[in-house]
Amino acid sequence: MQSAVHDATRELLAEVGRAELTVPMIAARAGVTSSTIYRRWGDLRQLLSDVAVERLRPETPPEDTGSLRTDLLRWAEQYLEESGSPTGKAYLLDVLAANADPSNQFQCSRFNQRQIGHIVDRAIARGEPAPEVDTVLDHVVAPTIYRILFGTELPPVEWVRGLVSSVLEGLTVKEVR
Amino acid sequence: MQSAVHDATRELLAEVGRAELTVPMIAARAGVTSSTIYRRWGDLRQLLSDVAVERLRPETPPEDTGSLRTDLLRWAEQYLEESGSPTGKAYLLDVLAANADPSNQFQCSRFNQRQIGHIVDRAIARGEPAPEVDTVLDHVVAPTIYRILFGTELPPVEWVRGLVSSVLEGLTVKEVR
Repeated sequence: MQSAVHDATRELLAEVGRAELTVPMIAARAGVTSSTIYRRWGDLRQLLSDVAVERLRPETPPEDTGSLRTDLLRWAEQYLEESGSPTGKAYLLDVLAANADPSNQFQCSRFNQRQIGHIVDRAIARGEPAPEVDTVLDHVVAPTIYRILFGTELPPVEWVRGLVSSVLEGLTVKEVR
Repeated sequence: MQSAVHDATRELLAEVGRAELTVPMIAARAGVTSSTIYRRWGDLRQLLSDVAVERLRPETPPEDTGSLRTDLLRWAEQYLEESGSPTGKAYLLDVLAANADPSNQFQCSRFNQRQIGHIVDRAIARGEPAPEVDTVLDHVVAPTIYRILFGTELPPVEWVRGLVSSVLEGLTVKEVR
């Protein structure tokens, strides 16, 4: 039942858009009653948040490109591109909108933690010195999310490469006087 | 009219809480009709977002403590405490929830930009070398917001002090092997 409802929600999001989407519409498409959906999810917001978390769940570990630097660059560039797309941002906002239940927000953060963890573990296995996972979260993932959520436009890929350099070579602070 | 509605919303948020809050309730308290509110704001989400932005708007420039380091520390510690409080987080989520109109999200980011700008300008006026505003946004503000929005618990004040050090002395990356 859950996967039929998730599928119906994703299809209808693409077909009719978020503003027009209703629980009865999703119920009809999924072949269940509206009250089944309300019983299981409470409201549309929680359902959208659950669907978003499933979409944000990484399907595979980050690509192994042979070095820490290129692994991190590849991952960070893809993360900016995917989470910064209109669909990616809408999913992030859906996860944050369900302020009744913050567990989906924690889940999102754990996805990033796990992906970065893979990259760091591989670096250690290769004998490369590697930053702590939290450092990458604070100085690569967090600024990317901040720009996506609060910025007027998406930063260029060079910007995210600079973030990766800051956790590999230390932050070079351009000083103004 | 706008300020009566904002005041009524804030009062009722404190008295009955977000889950129970309705437009007719706010209208009655503000002495206007519900349709006035719908005409002006569209829906409750947009009204809550507008109220949140007003609450997040800094009333004064950051305190001048005599040095860049202490100005930044004071500001960052307060920002973690205020935005990380249950009320502060609820306001951030309200701003992000109005995904129909992202201008409130940009506005939030501009508040931070302006406050950090004051601190940096004062440092320059004192003859201190100072980081760029964007560097402080990416490496102090962004990780703080990320932990508030996606973390299971608020980081300790030592953590935010470490972020300030990273933009003043460069990021010291603890390496794991």
